Amino acid sequence: MFNKIVIFGVGLIGGSFALALKNAGAVKHVVGIGRTSASLERAKALGIIDEIGASIPDALKGADLVLIATPVAQTEAILASIQAHLEPGTIVTDAGSTKADVVAAARAAMGEKIAQFIPAHPIAGRESNGPGAAIPDLYQGKKVVLTPLTENSSGDLERVMFAWKLCGAVIHRLSAEEHDRVFAAVSHLPHLLAYALVDDIARKPHAELLFQFAASGFRDFTRIAGSSPEMWRDISMANQTALLAELDAYITQLNGIRALLAAQNGPGLEAVYANAQRARQNWMSSIEAAEKARKEGGD
Amino acid sequence: MFNKIVIFGVGLIGGSFALALKNAGAVKHVVGIGRTSASLERAKALGIIDEIGASIPDALKGADLVLIATPVAQTEAILASIQAHLEPGTIVTDAGSTKADVVAAARAAMGEKIAQFIPAHPIAGRESNGPGAAIPDLYQGKKVVLTPLTENSSGDLERVMFAWKLCGAVIHRLSAEEHDRVFAAVSHLPHLLAYALVDDIARKPHAELLFQFAASGFRDFTRIAGSSPEMWRDISMANQTALLAELDAYITQLNGIRALLAAQNGPGLEAVYANAQRARQNWMSSIEAAEKARKEGGD
Repeated sequence: MFNKIVIFGVGLIGGSFALALKNAGAVKHVVGIGRTSASLERAKALGIIDEIGASIPDALKGADLVLIATPVAQTEAILASIQAHLEPGTIVTDAGSTKADVVAAARAAMGEKIAQFIPAHPIAGRESNGPGAAIPDLYQGKKVVLTPLTENSSGDLERVMFAWKLCGAVIHRLSAEEHDRVFAAVSHLPHLLAYALVDDIARKPHAELLFQFAASGFRDFTRIAGSSPEMWRDISMANQTALLAELDAYITQLNGIRALLAAQNGPGLEAVYANAQRARQNWMSSIEAAEKARKEGGD
Repeated sequence: MFNKIVIFGVGLIGGSFALALKNAGAVKHVVGIGRTSASLERAKALGIIDEIGASIPDALKGADLVLIATPVAQTEAILASIQAHLEPGTIVTDAGSTKADVVAAARAAMGEKIAQFIPAHPIAGRESNGPGAAIPDLYQGKKVVLTPLTENSSGDLERVMFAWKLCGAVIHRLSAEEHDRVFAAVSHLPHLLAYALVDDIARKPHAELLFQFAASGFRDFTRIAGSSPEMWRDISMANQTALLAELDAYITQLNGIRALLAAQNGPGLEAVYANAQRARQNWMSSIEAAEKARKEGGD
């Protein structure tokens, strides 16, 4: 049970966290803090938060847990603003899509209170955003990756894991660097590639004709290019090193496929395509098996 | 009304064409020809075809329309096998995903009967394949691109358009070269890029860890990498020139984005992402508007 939780950013991510804990009867009082009073009023009207934080010192008084669920570029300023007011028993966690930069920001901002900060990344999202998009089961069956610091106590870690489990999430642990390399490959690079393709097509003189004949394959391939440009600019910049490494590997891969195509090497091209198809089928099967096991386990 | 239609390849594409025309009461007799007797028996049992063609001369006797709906690499051999038996009143059309190569194959195989061949490409597909996947409304609201030859008569063209309209399709006309350039950009390149990404990840030493954290964005981005490797090898090879041009443009685009990222040029990166997001939103809105107009028009 949490007596008081403070949430910075009461949109989809923070709002869904609050709703899930409320649904589980696991939190008595939720305080919301945000940049626009309209969002905070909306979140209060929707029952996501119980109180709009009037000041940071007041909000933090007696808080068990603070969740920072704002765009990742704001994390350091928020940590700096709360540091002086943080009580010894309060745990701070976040929901940022990159972790090494968040850890660096936390070390810079938190000083001797760094042990109270537990970095986390819930792997969940929807097309829509804001308090109105928040739903209590957003995290049901989804992964949450914790990237604990050596300074974190096992008791605090347990508390954060407990909160996410109440939301229905499946907990994983990686180092911040592992996390960033993994998500550069399976999330940040695909976003960059999808944006790159749509921008490339949109800037062609016959773009209108091209879009006219784009069909469902194109729609799904580019769905993630509908994501927030500001958010993905921040993620790309925050994870620059790992993303550059993945992008370079991919450009090398494309140059290799280009050579096969230019040489009319049908078997070579087919081998690449077939390996991809096989790997994707195995991946889809393992997802379905894991989902089935999770549901049967009632977890 | 068609008295007799002959379909080469009674799978998803050919089978759905037959079912749609049967549903419309627009065909008396459908003859199927294929490589495996199992597929043909299945198609007959499902009511897709009325007769399994015993021989090409028999099948073509009195046929109004021949549809070639096999993998595109077989088109030339099929045209060569039917050429001598084709009656003057029979129209031949196809459903291949590439058109300049099909036109070249037709010119080589059809000789003085080339006017009877009308190249076409229905833009429709499903995850599944074979006669069991065929459905009568596959083409409802979908585009069919005709790439007519100068030799085609307007009467024959009208007949082919009439058949596709009975299937519920919306007819478009392009030159074969235009068609291939358009689909290289909006279909063939995205397939190649999706295959390339999954193959790239699958060959990394820590592939298992990466796939473990791939989520819904990755799933949609790579959906088309679940497509048939043989089919996409053939399409890539058949449309080599246009696909290489699009791939080169894309690699140039990636190198440009790489430079922005390496220089930590946030505004530059955001401009690319924002342009893509805006273009995709406009495209989605225009699709929805067109779909609404089509439904309201009862077309």
